[in-house]
Amino acid sequence: MNLTQFEELYALLTGKNLKELKEILSEMPYPDIAEFIMELDDELDEEKLAVKVFRILPKDISADVFAYLDPDSQMLIVRSITDSEIGRLMDDLFVDDAVDFLEEVPANMVRRVLANTDKETRDIINRFLKYPDNCAGSVMTIEMVDLHDRLTVGEAIKNIRRSGVDKETIYTCYVIDDNRHLVGTIPLRRLLLNDEETLITDIMSDDEQLIYVRTMDDQEEVASIAKKYDLLSVPVVDNEGRLVGIITIDDIIDIIDEEATEDFEKMANLTPSDDEYLKTKIGVLAKNRIPWLIILLISSTFTGQIIEGFETKLAAIAGMTACIPMLMGTGGNSGSQVSTLIIRGLALDEIRVKDYFKVLWKEIRVSFMVGFVLALVNIVRMFVLRYTLGSDASTSVIFVVSFSIWCVVIVAKIMGCSLPIVAKLCRMDPAMMTGPLMSTVVDAVSLLIYFALANALIPNI
Amino acid sequence: MNLTQFEELYALLTGKNLKELKEILSEMPYPDIAEFIMELDDELDEEKLAVKVFRILPKDISADVFAYLDPDSQMLIVRSITDSEIGRLMDDLFVDDAVDFLEEVPANMVRRVLANTDKETRDIINRFLKYPDNCAGSVMTIEMVDLHDRLTVGEAIKNIRRSGVDKETIYTCYVIDDNRHLVGTIPLRRLLLNDEETLITDIMSDDEQLIYVRTMDDQEEVASIAKKYDLLSVPVVDNEGRLVGIITIDDIIDIIDEEATEDFEKMANLTPSDDEYLKTKIGVLAKNRIPWLIILLISSTFTGQIIEGFETKLAAIAGMTACIPMLMGTGGNSGSQVSTLIIRGLALDEIRVKDYFKVLWKEIRVSFMVGFVLALVNIVRMFVLRYTLGSDASTSVIFVVSFSIWCVVIVAKIMGCSLPIVAKLCRMDPAMMTGPLMSTVVDAVSLLIYFALANALIPNI
Repeated sequence: MNLTQFEELYALLTGKNLKELKEILSEMPYPDIAEFIMELDDELDEEKLAVKVFRILPKDISADVFAYLDPDSQMLIVRSITDSEIGRLMDDLFVDDAVDFLEEVPANMVRRVLANTDKETRDIINRFLKYPDNCAGSVMTIEMVDLHDRLTVGEAIKNIRRSGVDKETIYTCYVIDDNRHLVGTIPLRRLLLNDEETLITDIMSDDEQLIYVRTMDDQEEVASIAKKYDLLSVPVVDNEGRLVGIITIDDIIDIIDEEATEDFEKMANLTPSDDEYLKTKIGVLAKNRIPWLIILLISSTFTGQIIEGFETKLAAIAGMTACIPMLMGTGGNSGSQVSTLIIRGLALDEIRVKDYFKVLWKEIRVSFMVGFVLALVNIVRMFVLRYTLGSDASTSVIFVVSFSIWCVVIVAKIMGCSLPIVAKLCRMDPAMMTGPLMSTVVDAVSLLIYFALANALIPNI
Repeated sequence: MNLTQFEELYALLTGKNLKELKEILSEMPYPDIAEFIMELDDELDEEKLAVKVFRILPKDISADVFAYLDPDSQMLIVRSITDSEIGRLMDDLFVDDAVDFLEEVPANMVRRVLANTDKETRDIINRFLKYPDNCAGSVMTIEMVDLHDRLTVGEAIKNIRRSGVDKETIYTCYVIDDNRHLVGTIPLRRLLLNDEETLITDIMSDDEQLIYVRTMDDQEEVASIAKKYDLLSVPVVDNEGRLVGIITIDDIIDIIDEEATEDFEKMANLTPSDDEYLKTKIGVLAKNRIPWLIILLISSTFTGQIIEGFETKLAAIAGMTACIPMLMGTGGNSGSQVSTLIIRGLALDEIRVKDYFKVLWKEIRVSFMVGFVLALVNIVRMFVLRYTLGSDASTSVIFVVSFSIWCVVIVAKIMGCSLPIVAKLCRMDPAMMTGPLMSTVVDAVSLLIYFALANALIPNI
């Protein structure tokens, strides 16, 4: 929504021209209406106006708009409407949207909301709320088209026309037997392109082609299956193979974004969080950051000790101390270049654990090249510094530093490709494990290489 | 595909039991068949067997399987089949898949392939190949359902039944006028749930609700629109508003993954690349890494100079040098924690440039808290080191270091939230700009703060 649009709507709202506003809103896409309400609430602190807009929405679209609001605005709305309005709203929402909302609000609001929904909906919601976060059960919905396996194509289409309006998607239909076991899937497209008399069991995908997840499967698994097979929805079955829900492509896209965000956060040494930055309280932001910074601070004790052990010699050889940050930086950057590629490759299933030796062999060769080029650049850089800015690094120091760079790049690249794969092999999270371990180990190893080479190659130590 | 499945298929293939293999393959999902062919080609170097499998595929599915192969295996296949087979394959492929393939192969293969396609397909492909990378035109396809605006629902459904088999998706239909201008969209669902006699113009989404992109729009824009409005396909129009193609949700998911991967790579100081790690030659890997490492190496000259200027004093005060890596590390980590959150928030449209002051105010408060906690932890850490390992840092050094940590965290967090937003404001890439600038500036500022505090607070300098 652009500024002009917002201002037009705002003028109608404050000018009490509500009839025209209602007409315009009922023509607008739901996400845009939701955006308008959230802007009123968040940006202008006009809570009353936000609620007013929600209340003038035509009854048949208010649940759709509600699903697009963020939790803050959803809570605002629910606090301001009557008990019977809550009941109707929860009935109209798809189960996954209702559950998403209830997972974010305080317990007393959950109680009030559930008290005002009918028993059947309440039971379903309660069951869904029990699934652990991030498993298939917690993101699925129940509004799918399930067709009995005795139907013909014509009957199936009639069935969809009759009940389709309340389904989250009708584009993939799920075929079940008398005991609700999932026995096949059939895209609406295939129904439409076949004769009315055909039995759906004759044209459905079954056995080899039947793709589904179980309620307790990780949501990452759901996303990777949907991507691999280009599915518009993924069916979810319970332990007995009975169809209990589906996960639609819009939620799968949210999962993909969430999982990528989590990896970004882990790689930046943050405790991952599902909340949007601007909606997160500063106490929570601090809490997500402090533990990792403390771990890294304490682990830097190693590097400190290594330097202290070499302190008198550093003091004696001019120019050596000044190169420490550069050397450690080069090691850290070289390592994280590789580890990022590997972590991302593992996340996208482009790299597997069994590829380790291929990756290692690649990295050994790449690191020889990269390290060599950097060492050369550094020799030039340090000689230039000596003859222009009068840096006091001797020729032997320059060569020790440059040779150290070469070695450090090789070690860092080997570590950078090994740590994520080893973490994966040990069933740990590659993104989580690699960050802190990498910097600690590469830092310490860089210094040890540097000082060992100095001891060996600089005569006057 | 698991190992047993692979071995079964392999046994049939090498045991010359091709009839049974063909039957099994024709029941398998296309991505799994493609996986089987790629495993034969990549893992076992059984190129001939890979081609053999492709050749025994039923004619009506070979193009579908081809679209799921990676470029290497696609080239292998095309090199091994006859000219007329190539012609038929290109005819059967959706235009976007054909273009994807041709973008990856050498020029002589493009020429051979195009020479064997009919003129119409060739003209379309040539037009598509001209679109710049990463714009909507380069990822769209032309196999959409376009309905004339005079049709009724019944006629529209009949039309879809007749022509739907060749369309990439039939679930969203696009309504055009006599001049092919896009005038509305209508989901198949709405067609099915309305009466046969209804005019489609009466139930289509138009005006306010008409959502589309232009051929030259960035693919990121396409993904963000599809996400916001939960679309299964996004229509693409030319400068005159004529419908020229659609982008389907499976391609949009690829775009989402690609854009996230690019941001990962930029934040790890890599030149972003579209190629899978395992398929990238080591020369290219090295080329993507060296420039940024050189930039960072050269920019570390600043920190080196700052340390050299302070070298005699560092030599005089025990324990100060040992803390340099810890201090710079803490600054770098604190900064990248924030910049990662901001860059990701900007990419997902959760944070906008106008939110800058909100973000800044948040970070100032968070950094005071985080910095304070870290400073305390450091005081404890350094005193423990003194009394256990006999570290020779004096009490004043301990306090200078800890106070520096506090200041450095504050500066780093302010930089970390400001740089990405400023980059965005200047229409530069936040992920690309922040990495190198951050580490250079934060490193230098950390040292300046440290040495300034030491000068001011340690009496014997």
